[in-house]
Amino acid sequence: MSIKLTILGCHSATPRVNAFPTSQYLEINNCHFLIDCGEGTQRQMRKYKVGFSKINHIFISHLHGDHFYGLVGLLSTYGILSREKDMHIYGPKGIKKATLLMLKISESHAKFNMIFHELSSNESELIFENDKVTVSTIPLNHRVYTNGYLFKEKEKPRKLNMLNISGYPEIDKADYLNIKAGKDVTLASGEIIKNDVLTKNPPKPLSYAFCSDTSYKPDIVTIVKNADILYHEATFLSDRQDLAKKTKHSTTLEAAQIAKDANVNKLIIGHYSGRYKDINLFQKEAETIFENVFLANPGEVFTANS
Amino acid sequence: MSIKLTILGCHSATPRVNAFPTSQYLEINNCHFLIDCGEGTQRQMRKYKVGFSKINHIFISHLHGDHFYGLVGLLSTYGILSREKDMHIYGPKGIKKATLLMLKISESHAKFNMIFHELSSNESELIFENDKVTVSTIPLNHRVYTNGYLFKEKEKPRKLNMLNISGYPEIDKADYLNIKAGKDVTLASGEIIKNDVLTKNPPKPLSYAFCSDTSYKPDIVTIVKNADILYHEATFLSDRQDLAKKTKHSTTLEAAQIAKDANVNKLIIGHYSGRYKDINLFQKEAETIFENVFLANPGEVFTANS
Repeated sequence: MSIKLTILGCHSATPRVNAFPTSQYLEINNCHFLIDCGEGTQRQMRKYKVGFSKINHIFISHLHGDHFYGLVGLLSTYGILSREKDMHIYGPKGIKKATLLMLKISESHAKFNMIFHELSSNESELIFENDKVTVSTIPLNHRVYTNGYLFKEKEKPRKLNMLNISGYPEIDKADYLNIKAGKDVTLASGEIIKNDVLTKNPPKPLSYAFCSDTSYKPDIVTIVKNADILYHEATFLSDRQDLAKKTKHSTTLEAAQIAKDANVNKLIIGHYSGRYKDINLFQKEAETIFENVFLANPGEVFTANS
Repeated sequence: MSIKLTILGCHSATPRVNAFPTSQYLEINNCHFLIDCGEGTQRQMRKYKVGFSKINHIFISHLHGDHFYGLVGLLSTYGILSREKDMHIYGPKGIKKATLLMLKISESHAKFNMIFHELSSNESELIFENDKVTVSTIPLNHRVYTNGYLFKEKEKPRKLNMLNISGYPEIDKADYLNIKAGKDVTLASGEIIKNDVLTKNPPKPLSYAFCSDTSYKPDIVTIVKNADILYHEATFLSDRQDLAKKTKHSTTLEAAQIAKDANVNKLIIGHYSGRYKDINLFQKEAETIFENVFLANPGEVFTANS
């Protein structure tokens, strides 16, 4: 089981030459997701060699431009690239109408279906599931309707303990599927061999929680509990707690508090306000509360394995 | 009188790491215009140190994404920068509705007025005029409704020929305004001093013609006649004349033919298709028809003075 997260952009809205708005590419249990899509995301995808055709699901947290204005250009490019596979787009109510109008006036004729999943609930909900992964919303608190997303690997079947199984010649290969599914085996003698003798634990399912943009919202702790990686926005240092409150963003201390309370393994912070020249200050401040803190930077890759 | 043209982007639609869609910043007779606004334009403006606040007029040729998808992000940024001055946006019918819907769902609250001038005529029309410059459309022929734009300096008043004037002590400073306006002077003796004795020609007014995207359209020659600088798209070399015709783009030979027939001083070509690795081939081919050819490249500056 594995997570590989590539940061495509991690800065807040005001454009600077070396700043890129939020976008992330997530590979989890061999599924491929794009998270947020600020202006210029498609160029960042090229730069960091993200395979365009692997992505079938795009998750947009909210409709502020620095998280969303790259979507229409990306979809238009998929048309130019003659994409034929369905593309699923998850985001706040309104995303479909605006995106389709922009594509229509550009006369972008796509051969593929765009399937919009518009969100409006304020409760966490399961919005995607296949045989490998689930995705649920993390309701956030920002100036507009916003969701984070929790990506969780599904449990794999138990692994056969071949050493122990070989001690029971009566057990046939035909039984392996049941054993992997957790069942005990009853021998002809009536003896029951417990499943935990015949199997080993499968790798631990991993999870990634993406939380941007939001003010400090302690009730998300139960949703992101024990995540292997948590990305939580930290737009301001605690010196601008006032501004964080006013603009419904978080400080580094608040992001770190969520990470600590949720007992996550690794915290990544980003969405730095342009007012700070030295982003290392974000890390230092967060580390006063939570020790395993990393700074998002374009092109940076974070991994977890089990 | 002077023109300074900064190329912000000059490539066709498919995203590549070092390719930027069409956008240009034009300074002409101390007026400042943005022409086209593909995705990422605002970042290119930062990179090449374009003063955001100087621009009050944006001209969009057509609504294909690679000429237009950066507009909403730029307008949103002007809101973040607390702009208060009116912004005039010229472009095809439909541009207003789509742009305002995108800004609305992002809840981008701008303090400034956006004044849209929607175009739908197939004849050249004067769309902007102040005391220094006029801007007229150049109807083009592309897959969607498209205009190029002709930017022309206005004639300045004639310049006083002080050496000759000093030969007539009777002529007073109070007469200078009339003399600059081209009037003769009648002395007390009844002698008429012709204006061309008292004045010199003012600097020649300059003009810049922007033509992208279009198939070969010889009837624009009369509109762009004698332009000091002509930008004309050249998406393909003549080896793909078939594709140029099909996609309603031009080849280098066609761009050069327009430049030659219109007797312009300088031809800039751009909008190169991604299929060509060596863009110097575009210049070489165009030079077989017109000698003064330049390649658009991001950050490149072209000037004209008189």
